[in-house]
Amino acid sequence: MAAVYYELIHKDAATGARAGILHTPHGKFLTPLFMPVGTQATVKTLSPHEVQNLGAGIILANTYHLFLRPGAELVKKAGGLHRFMNWTHAILTDSGGFQVFSLSDLRKITEDGVKFRSHIDGSEKFLSPEISIATQAALGSDIAMAFDECIPYPADYDYAKISTERTHRWAERSLNAATNPKQGIFGICQGGMYEDLRAESAKVIGAMNFAGCAVGGLSVGEPRNVMYRMLEVSTKFLPENKARYLMGVGTPDHLLEGVARGVDMFDCVFPTRVARNGMAMVSPQTNSRGRLVMKNSEFTEDFAPLEPNCDCYTCRNKFTRAYIRHLVRADEIFGLRLLALHNLRYLQRFMSNMREAILADSFNDFRENFFAAYEADNHA
Amino acid sequence: MAAVYYELIHKDAATGARAGILHTPHGKFLTPLFMPVGTQATVKTLSPHEVQNLGAGIILANTYHLFLRPGAELVKKAGGLHRFMNWTHAILTDSGGFQVFSLSDLRKITEDGVKFRSHIDGSEKFLSPEISIATQAALGSDIAMAFDECIPYPADYDYAKISTERTHRWAERSLNAATNPKQGIFGICQGGMYEDLRAESAKVIGAMNFAGCAVGGLSVGEPRNVMYRMLEVSTKFLPENKARYLMGVGTPDHLLEGVARGVDMFDCVFPTRVARNGMAMVSPQTNSRGRLVMKNSEFTEDFAPLEPNCDCYTCRNKFTRAYIRHLVRADEIFGLRLLALHNLRYLQRFMSNMREAILADSFNDFRENFFAAYEADNHA
Repeated sequence: MAAVYYELIHKDAATGARAGILHTPHGKFLTPLFMPVGTQATVKTLSPHEVQNLGAGIILANTYHLFLRPGAELVKKAGGLHRFMNWTHAILTDSGGFQVFSLSDLRKITEDGVKFRSHIDGSEKFLSPEISIATQAALGSDIAMAFDECIPYPADYDYAKISTERTHRWAERSLNAATNPKQGIFGICQGGMYEDLRAESAKVIGAMNFAGCAVGGLSVGEPRNVMYRMLEVSTKFLPENKARYLMGVGTPDHLLEGVARGVDMFDCVFPTRVARNGMAMVSPQTNSRGRLVMKNSEFTEDFAPLEPNCDCYTCRNKFTRAYIRHLVRADEIFGLRLLALHNLRYLQRFMSNMREAILADSFNDFRENFFAAYEADNHA
Repeated sequence: MAAVYYELIHKDAATGARAGILHTPHGKFLTPLFMPVGTQATVKTLSPHEVQNLGAGIILANTYHLFLRPGAELVKKAGGLHRFMNWTHAILTDSGGFQVFSLSDLRKITEDGVKFRSHIDGSEKFLSPEISIATQAALGSDIAMAFDECIPYPADYDYAKISTERTHRWAERSLNAATNPKQGIFGICQGGMYEDLRAESAKVIGAMNFAGCAVGGLSVGEPRNVMYRMLEVSTKFLPENKARYLMGVGTPDHLLEGVARGVDMFDCVFPTRVARNGMAMVSPQTNSRGRLVMKNSEFTEDFAPLEPNCDCYTCRNKFTRAYIRHLVRADEIFGLRLLALHNLRYLQRFMSNMREAILADSFNDFRENFFAAYEADNHA
């Protein structure tokens, strides 16, 4: 049996939503699932035990960051990423491609790979499919991602086509570079914001011998309806028997629409990043925008928990909105922790509620209930 | 029975060191003890459950900070400080005096109290013995401190005498302002760096109807031997049947010398502050200065825990020096948490080892063992 594989359990009757199980060397996890992001071998502000207690079974770590610091060889000497950061469940590492294009300076793309300058010390570095896969093998993640180019938005058709075809060649090279039989490798479809390129990319990546298929290059600034359309075209041509992973997506509305289009896995820094900005994620029934901005004076004497009936550490222990507001205003780290714990648990519950709805063939009701109360932001 | 009282269990045969029990409305705690500091109603970076698991039974919160933000009335509405911050054990609040003199601007001292500008928004505020005690009553701490002036160092004899005598009058006013029978009030001796003033202050404060006596105005920049001498003169004249609290002291050498001179209680931001600077506190057997500077390259491939045989969360879970170094270099909050947990647990164990030595009449051996391995810094 392959190290990593997807088991389809049930398809929602009315939509493309799927309930399944993702099998990995470090356990099996119910899908659809959301992966908290542990960029630098730590989910920001939290201990691995806290992340585990949230119900998260698989987390994402960033190859770009760990490649630069502390370096994959050091992590390997430490016994691999699981041991290094004390995480006993599964880890997915991205390929480094996205960060090379979003964080580093002076990048130069050739057929061979990407030359760039480190955002930490400005030193010149090089990543290629072979180096990315070797780095991920040294890190020892359960799932490694093929090296790709995340096409900037907007991009013209010709560039999107050239880049997507190169991503396909890099996908092939990534597969050929694999050395770790305990690691599953996922391919990444691109295609920019062009339906035919998206469809073609899904077919090409879907036909390769990957353990799963990701959809990359979305949620990069395009309008929401364009994103949903591109996702639809992609998942339509992805094989049913492999996990589908929509990269970098983590707001409740996007998660719902992703699941509705047959996506099984997501990751995003959103819940931990907004926690550090003093924001609590809540159901649209509690707040129509799905969020509480804790600095607001309306919470000064609000002695309720963030969300009624939430079972997270923060709400279960009755830390009040007034106390969290105080901590946020006083720049106290414990305030960020309380919000990160709440936000990540909120998303874990959200995913698990979606799964229940899929199994009950009532996913569309669940989705409509959400959107009936939800008032989207104008952006994206 | 008084809300707060001290029970002497044993005096070390060779030194002034005492083992006892401090009784409070929120439990009884073995002395000598060290109180972690929760300045703004949170021990920096940690949850109350983590602080409790360290073995800390009593923590300190700062009246000055809470008076300014969020305000004592808000905390009272929340159900008091214990409920506000979710801390089920005891809390000692300081009087605000020290911070008024160290943090605020434009202070003006009169017999009535101190006018000052908030370090947060520059607004004009006023603290007096009566306001400080009323604030602490609203916060609902187990132990409130009398309002005093912390004399700057250096100060001439005449100023030290004038200030100390005013502190005595303020002590009396603090006692008279008490309204909360569930709260014990501690007096604070001052006296600058003058033996006769220290002795006199200890006699005056010791004779008043306080639940305990603190020694203030030490560890403010004076040479180490001066501090020890002033402490000696103070504790000599303090009553045996009350707890003695040396304020703002928390390095192992000072704790040892304080206990040797009959001190029962300490507090200091040192363990949490140095954690945020990337420093681990360790025994002098592990490092002669008693500390590891985690950024140092010597820890790059050091896969040992911070300290062998340490039972803190960090060491027990085998988070390595290499991993902590990585987190500190990457500015990850979890690194600070791992260090804060370790440092505070280190001090809890240190206090409890001192107590065992006192009970076994071997405190001097314990102290000499420490100093045989310890290489003090030149400062203070």
